[in-house]
Amino acid sequence: MLVVQKYGGTSVGSIERIKAVARRVVETKRAGHDVVVVVSAMAGETDKLISMAQEISEEPPEREMDLLLSSGERVSAALLAMAINELGYRAMSFTGRQVGIITDTSHTKAKIERVTAERVKDALKEGVIPVVAGFQGISETSDVTTLGRGGSDLTAVAVAAALGADLCEIYTDVEGVFTADPNIVPEAKKLERITYEEMLEMASLGAKVLQTRSVEFAMKYNVPLVVRSSFTDRPGTLVIKEDRDMEKVMVSGVAHDKNQTKITILSVPDRPGIAAKLFRRIADANIVVDMIVQNISSDGRSTDISFTVPKADRDKAVRITEEVASELDAKGVSVDDNIAKVSIVGVGMKTHSGVAAKMFETLAREGINIMMISTSEIKVSCVIDVKYTELAVRVLHEAFGLDR
Amino acid sequence: MLVVQKYGGTSVGSIERIKAVARRVVETKRAGHDVVVVVSAMAGETDKLISMAQEISEEPPEREMDLLLSSGERVSAALLAMAINELGYRAMSFTGRQVGIITDTSHTKAKIERVTAERVKDALKEGVIPVVAGFQGISETSDVTTLGRGGSDLTAVAVAAALGADLCEIYTDVEGVFTADPNIVPEAKKLERITYEEMLEMASLGAKVLQTRSVEFAMKYNVPLVVRSSFTDRPGTLVIKEDRDMEKVMVSGVAHDKNQTKITILSVPDRPGIAAKLFRRIADANIVVDMIVQNISSDGRSTDISFTVPKADRDKAVRITEEVASELDAKGVSVDDNIAKVSIVGVGMKTHSGVAAKMFETLAREGINIMMISTSEIKVSCVIDVKYTELAVRVLHEAFGLDR
Repeated sequence: MLVVQKYGGTSVGSIERIKAVARRVVETKRAGHDVVVVVSAMAGETDKLISMAQEISEEPPEREMDLLLSSGERVSAALLAMAINELGYRAMSFTGRQVGIITDTSHTKAKIERVTAERVKDALKEGVIPVVAGFQGISETSDVTTLGRGGSDLTAVAVAAALGADLCEIYTDVEGVFTADPNIVPEAKKLERITYEEMLEMASLGAKVLQTRSVEFAMKYNVPLVVRSSFTDRPGTLVIKEDRDMEKVMVSGVAHDKNQTKITILSVPDRPGIAAKLFRRIADANIVVDMIVQNISSDGRSTDISFTVPKADRDKAVRITEEVASELDAKGVSVDDNIAKVSIVGVGMKTHSGVAAKMFETLAREGINIMMISTSEIKVSCVIDVKYTELAVRVLHEAFGLDR
Repeated sequence: MLVVQKYGGTSVGSIERIKAVARRVVETKRAGHDVVVVVSAMAGETDKLISMAQEISEEPPEREMDLLLSSGERVSAALLAMAINELGYRAMSFTGRQVGIITDTSHTKAKIERVTAERVKDALKEGVIPVVAGFQGISETSDVTTLGRGGSDLTAVAVAAALGADLCEIYTDVEGVFTADPNIVPEAKKLERITYEEMLEMASLGAKVLQTRSVEFAMKYNVPLVVRSSFTDRPGTLVIKEDRDMEKVMVSGVAHDKNQTKITILSVPDRPGIAAKLFRRIADANIVVDMIVQNISSDGRSTDISFTVPKADRDKAVRITEEVASELDAKGVSVDDNIAKVSIVGVGMKTHSGVAAKMFETLAREGINIMMISTSEIKVSCVIDVKYTELAVRVLHEAFGLDR
């Protein structure tokens, strides 16, 4: 079996932990499998580099940020390769360039265009354990790029897809995917299996176990994923294609996300092309808009558009919205940082009716006002006041029987 | 004028210092010059990385060491490029690979084979200030290599040569090259000018202002060098080709080096090829031998060979010597770590006789025993007991009138 193992920042957070990871890698090799390892930067390193950059500049050039940030994963890849060699197994580090992770030129958020993995394949043929520096690639113009926060997950999945690996294991500091955040709901249960679609909704809804793009990539190339802890030997959660058994469960989990800001553009003329103009400009700035709601206002001639963006992009998004608002003679822009998104997710929803209604009733019973609603085939999300987040998660977890 | 400026680890040792370097670079640009900057890792970073590697392995694979160590210069190059941009000037970082510093595959001590500098030339044409990560290159097999301790000096000189720069300024934490170490001889004077040959002897003799290979490279390509401090505006020392005035001074400086170990192979048969065998094996291990002395022993049939190597290579060199000793039926190997080398250097020696004799007399007067002697056209070196180092430097400095 060919296994790609990805170890996150806390798993390689110290020399002792790097040695422990080396032992785990060697065990897998000893069990007769081929292993490719992908590593993040040591915990804290990336934040340290970011804060140095911020001491120098409020908006440092993104090309320079990428060279800066990519160094952390190179350090941990080299150290882990050394630690595996020290255990008597041959290992070799590979940078994003050496792996052939070719990306576009969107620095700090680059998209993978293709993965050649030639040198990794050669190393495997020679019995060498390749240790890949995660999070980074190289652009067509030969500049170092990075794949955005959590990008090492994407590296692992992309390498697994390029190699046709049998399994991609994501080692992290949690034991798997839970029905809700165990810090909020002590009764939350670890899921044995979950579909790509559910995981995708969970991830994009703020259950920060896996980076969204890595799940999309895994789904597209049908790479079986396992999320598990590097600190225990427990089995983790398997992320795979939907199978029939999974539909029996109506809701798989409750996710929440406090990391969004709600922006509203007030009283714009209600005519075609308004929304297009706004969201094109926001997309051009590389900002991912999450929920969008448009209401007709009382006079029937103008409309309010509300949407949410990640807090990290808040200032940029507000600036763009204000520009567009003044071009459109809108009444103004309002911003609400004190919001949270609470969501229920499950492939079972497709075949069960009344799921959304039950969610709204449950929240209403607790006096929680819903500001925005958004639905998909397998999830319902509500934006609420941030102060009710924990309460909402707990009552929904109970209402959908997830604690049983 | 096109100037290459190299800033060492202490010059970029903190965010504040990086900002100060940015201001100095911008001043040079404002004065109408084109500038290319080469940076070392922030002070302490390389040592931190080395100690992490040593926690993992006593002899980590050198290819992995290179990936590990090269990250420090990438960080400082990115940060300095940000700091220059912040001052309103365009700057771009370039890694060893992006500069096109192609080396052989001798990891941790790679030799530069050629420098293309295409992207640096393009950047200059567009008015951009290139910031080059020092110390690193890329091998023909596309692996990251490093140029050995002090390798950023070599990067600067090699880039200056490739660009045909008018001047290469080496910014460090000392004000220039002195007639002796001012910590030992308070009367030591800063030299205004010095020849490449003298600088070469000074550097290889332990005056650690410039890395030896960088001076050789500068001499070969006739790159004018200036050694100066980044903390003052004082002029520094110019390192250039010999001119007539320089010959008037007999001795330019007194250098010392405590960083060598003396190894002796005892009573090997005195027949041709013995020395060749030993030093070929040592050279193959990439160890640079400094002084070599061979004596006929009393019986006239066997000989002792003594030589000195850098302390960093001591254990490797001793191991090889012991292997060779047993193959040759030598009596044994003795090792002396408590030695120092004291040297006088000056192009003027060529035309003055009695310089060596005066040195030996001066040392003898102080009761300092000489263990090994080695001479060249422009220097005389003596290996002595390490405890006499400071005394020897002081009396030689005075004897040759350097304090006047």
